[in-house]
Order: sequence, then C-alpha cells, then structure tokens
Amino acid sequence: MKIHNFSAGPAILPQVVLKEAAQAVENFENLGLSILEVSHRSKEIVSVMNEAQTLVKELLHLGDDYKVLFLTGGASTQFFTIAMNLLNPEETACYVDTGAWSTKAIKEVHNFGKVNVLASSKASNYNYIPKDWLVPANTKYLHITSNNTIYGTQYKTYPKSDKAILVADMSSDIFSHTFDATQFGLIYAGAQKNLGPAGTTLVIVKKDILGQVTREIPTMLDYRTHIKKDSSFNTPPVYPIYVCLLTLRWLQGQGGLKAVEANNRKKADLLYREIDRNPFFKGVAAVEDRSSMNVTFVANNEAHGAAFLEYCTANGISGIKGHRSVGGFRASIYNAMPLESVAYLVDLMKNFKPE
Amino acid sequence: MKIHNFSAGPAILPQVVLKEAAQAVENFENLGLSILEVSHRSKEIVSVMNEAQTLVKELLHLGDDYKVLFLTGGASTQFFTIAMNLLNPEETACYVDTGAWSTKAIKEVHNFGKVNVLASSKASNYNYIPKDWLVPANTKYLHITSNNTIYGTQYKTYPKSDKAILVADMSSDIFSHTFDATQFGLIYAGAQKNLGPAGTTLVIVKKDILGQVTREIPTMLDYRTHIKKDSSFNTPPVYPIYVCLLTLRWLQGQGGLKAVEANNRKKADLLYREIDRNPFFKGVAAVEDRSSMNVTFVANNEAHGAAFLEYCTANGISGIKGHRSVGGFRASIYNAMPLESVAYLVDLMKNFKPE
Repeated sequence: MKIHNFSAGPAILPQVVLKEAAQAVENFENLGLSILEVSHRSKEIVSVMNEAQTLVKELLHLGDDYKVLFLTGGASTQFFTIAMNLLNPEETACYVDTGAWSTKAIKEVHNFGKVNVLASSKASNYNYIPKDWLVPANTKYLHITSNNTIYGTQYKTYPKSDKAILVADMSSDIFSHTFDATQFGLIYAGAQKNLGPAGTTLVIVKKDILGQVTREIPTMLDYRTHIKKDSSFNTPPVYPIYVCLLTLRWLQGQGGLKAVEANNRKKADLLYREIDRNPFFKGVAAVEDRSSMNVTFVANNEAHGAAFLEYCTANGISGIKGHRSVGGFRASIYNAMPLESVAYLVDLMKNFKPE
Repeated sequence: MKIHNFSAGPAILPQVVLKEAAQAVENFENLGLSILEVSHRSKEIVSVMNEAQTLVKELLHLGDDYKVLFLTGGASTQFFTIAMNLLNPEETACYVDTGAWSTKAIKEVHNFGKVNVLASSKASNYNYIPKDWLVPANTKYLHITSNNTIYGTQYKTYPKSDKAILVADMSSDIFSHTFDATQFGLIYAGAQKNLGPAGTTLVIVKKDILGQVTREIPTMLDYRTHIKKDSSFNTPPVYPIYVCLLTLRWLQGQGGLKAVEANNRKKADLLYREIDRNPFFKGVAAVEDRSSMNVTFVANNEAHGAAFLEYCTANGISGIKGHRSVGGFRASIYNAMPLESVAYLVDLMKNFKPE
C-alpha cells in the first residue's frame, strides 16, 4: 500500500531527493566512498556547502549583505543564541506569542536582556495571529514565529519594523511562498519540515546586525565564527546539509518560490474547501490566519474522530493525528506533498460515513 | 579501483553499516517511508534512540548512574558546555594541553570559571603526552583529550583523579579499546571518527555531577534537559544517530571492545613496524604515546614525501596526507578500517622506491 506521509516533522521529502540521498550513501559522486565517510574538507563537500548557500540566496533573492549558515541544535538552540548575539542586558527584545514555539523562544531571553511580549493568542489556544499591537521605540529586535505547526496558523503579511531588527522562526514554512526576505535581519529554520532531514538548522543573517553586544560569546555560539568559516569552523552535519541541497535544487527545478507557492495554494484550498463543506469536520484556526502548511481540523464529535483516524490509517494515511494540545487532525502539506496525496485525503473525507 | 579510506574524519565506516544506512534512506523498516521523513516521536525512532543508548552502556559496562546523550554541535560545543554545567565562577578546572583540540577546549573556560593548564607539550609540537603533573586540591574537574588526531598521540593509561571530576574528549578513540569508564564523570565524542557520520555528539555523563552550578543555563545547553527527555527534548539528528546505532551493533557483533582492541592493536603494530623498519620513513609521535587510531609519519626528505603521496593516490589510498601543522602522512586506522587495507598500505611502503 502506498503511504501518504502527512507528518508534521520530520516530514515528507520529494521522492527524487530521497532517491539521490540513498545513492549518495552508497557511492557519493562516483568517488567509491559513501558521503558518510568523506572529509568535510574535501573539494566535493566544500562544493556541497557552497552550492547550498548560493541556492538559498537565489531562492530568496538575497545579496552579499546576508550570510547563509547551516548550523545544528535546531530552532531551540536559536532561541537563546539570537538573544546572546543581538541583545545587551539593558536592551529590550519584543516577541509576539503565537504558540508553544514562541513561548519557548520567549523563555530564553531574560538571561541576556529585557523581553516584552507585545501580544498573545494563548487565551484562545493560539487559534489566531494577534495583529493589534505596536512595536515600542527602542526595541532592539522583534521576533515572530511565521507559521505555527501545532495550531495551523500562519502570518500572511509580515509586520513592518522600521527600527527594530525583524527576526523570524520560519521552521515550518520556509521556502513555501514568496516574500521580501530583505525586511528581515535574521531568519532561522530547523530543516526537518520543508528543507531536509533532522540534523541541521538554517540561519540567514544580515551581517551588519552583529558585533553590537558587549558580552563574550562562546566561539560556537557566535554567528561570526560560522560566517568567517563558511559553516565549517568545526565538522558540519554533512549529510543533513547534503539532503537540504538536494531539496533546494528540487525547489529551483519547480520554478522557484512563486511556482511552489501556487502549488501550495492549490493543495491548501482543496483541503480547506472540503473541511468547510463536510458536516463531519470543522477547521481549528481563524479563517484569515489558516496555514498553507499545517491544516488543523477536528471531527464534529469524538466517536467520529476516532473512526476517521482509523479509516485514514487503514487507507495508508500516516502522521495525521493532531497535536495533543489541539486534538483532532493535522494534515501537514509541506512543499514536497503532492497534490494527488491531498486529493486522496479529501476523497477519504468525502467517502467517510460514520455509523 | 578499490578505495582505501584513511581519512581522519569524517572517516571510514563498516561496509555493512553503510549498506544498511543506504537501505533505511530508501525504505525504513518496511514502513514504506524513508528514515529521513519519519517523525522522531514514532515508535520506530524512539526504539532507535533507546537501543543506541543501551548499547553504549553495555559496551562500556556502565550502570544507571550514567546517562547517554546524543546531542549536536560537535566536541567544539562541549568545550564550553562542560564549563557552563560544571564550573562556578570561583572554581578551577584543570586541563592538560596535548594539541589543537585541547587548546580550543581551554580557550572556552575562562568565561565560566578559573582555568589551570597543568602541562603542555606545545613546545615540541605536541609529539608526546605530558605525564609529569599533579592535580591540585580543590580542582573541580580535570580535562584530557584522550587521543590527538593531528599529532598521533594517545593516552595509554588515564590519570587518577580522586576528588576532581575526570572529563575526557574521546572524539577520535571512543570504542577503540577497553577501559574503566566509571572513573570518568563525563566523556564526550563527536561521532564522525569511530562512531558514525558527522551530525551528532555522544555525551556520557554521571548524573550526580550535575546541578551544582549557580548560573542559569540556556535550556538546550543544560545536560539535565536532555537527560529528562532522553535526547528528544527537541528534534534530534535522527539519521546520524541511526547510523551510530548501526555501528554500535557492529561493534557488539565484533565481540565488544576487547575484540575491537585486539584488532586495532594488530593494525597499529603492523604499520608502526613498517615505519620503524623502512629507511624512507620515520614516526612523528614519541614511541610510548603512539596512537592506535592515527598513525603519523614523515618521509626522510621532501621529494620522497611528495613521491610517496602521489604513489598512494595512484593506488587507491585516500585521505592519508598529514595535517598541515605536522606535515607528512597520517594514516587514520579507526575501528572500521580492515587489517587488509593496512596491509595494503604497508605493501605500498615496502614497494616504494624513490628515484
């Protein structure tokens, strides 16, 4: 039975990427060696690192004032690394709290400077993106979580931030749509949703925002260390980065982010239309904030929910159970998810006839 | 032509490991999914994490007072994480400086407490392990680098440390020989030499040494975070850890560390014997400190060195060029290196007839 992988992350990757990724483990670029055993200082791996950086900049139309890094430790490590690199003790960082990941990011800041939570949708279990807030003067940086995997909400436009540095955790919607990346000072994303396997973290940083803090930063946590050494100060996570490169090539082969966005729009529209039409289901997120990556919905009653989950599992749908803090269902339809798989899920929803 | 991979790291892995590693990228445990796209919360991946931890403890004969963690960031991240977790500002950590990696580790400590370098072999380009030193009273921890990849030196016995916590960077010789692991409070190792591909860092920690510092530690840098969540507080580097598991199974299949050590001894003896016999070469490291993992040697003159490197390359030897700070040759003969490949190299040395 064909498996349709709706997992929230680690998540589906393009079939062609997986095929090339397996091939490289057997014999990498006809070297007679596996990519897992090749030195990161070899010209082949240096070329992988360089091409991956170049493709990120091309896809996002970024110039040389930005640096692309492939680090480790996940978005969770960025939560404090950002504050450590950008915030002096007397300065203030502003955050918008749109869910569990924002909350975790906020928790790490007070060790390094002041934190101001401008708005939160916690009281309604994060089912919308707060929009009614202003950035105070003298804010060092403003942090947002662009897409909220658990609740299925997503920023459709990014806040303007004239003076404060705009920082975003884009772990779950990076490369899923076009946007003006030059409005950001720093973008970070764990790879394991839209970019590659678990094991590397993409950081895109505008170089001139660094070097303004007075504290001593441990070498490995200082972005400048990795900028200077092209993400190879120490041994980088070679294979996860290689699989990211394969995905970046695939994204470009699709026609870049404009084409990817159009395809994602089609998939999301198809699924939300069925959720709104089908009397057995209802959507979780506020309509105007609905994510094009993580589609959250619940059944109209608990028994129907259990029956539909069973029906899905029996029919080759994997990873669609909602996060425990929301319940119901979460269909993660990242870039690599084919329209056919979404149509297949929609057909199951249409055919679902609870007793 | 068969390639013999003498690279210092990322380094050779057992052929059977590479074969299974490629298979899992295609179809992991017959799930119909690649291991790269499976959730880290799935029962299959949770089982990978658990088995890897269990095997490390079995191979090292460790009990439940120790915890095995698979983290990220390399040994370089451990350099400051150790001090952050173990050292209060008024306390002193002692280090023995046996090379570039010790030096980098030492550099990160002063941010968190006092550092005392007990001995250094820097003046002779680190070609021996200093042994003439004592640990002062009131030392919080004593740090050593068990094997020095660049210079080819290795501790044959570990220092006794009655009161100070013994900490070791074992990145390049972990699981290569038997030793009493219970004398250590903390052992860490980047995976990419003897354990797996780049992308995960093994940390073995005695639980009762933690919780004694007063500073606030960022969540992701606090060992207790990862102990509590079995290395899955956030998404771990699933695939690198899986390949480590395959290697750990292979190590156990070899008959455990006693058998692995005997095999490593044979390989090292064969190679050092030829270095000592052959008039065209001489060893770099002091005889009593010679590493069984990284065998460093130089040619008797520069022209012969260049000719031998060319001869090696033409005959399928990869990664044998010495580190720039030592020059000459470095044959890294980690656990996975077959005796046949060492014998093949020795034959090339015997057959080498410079003009």
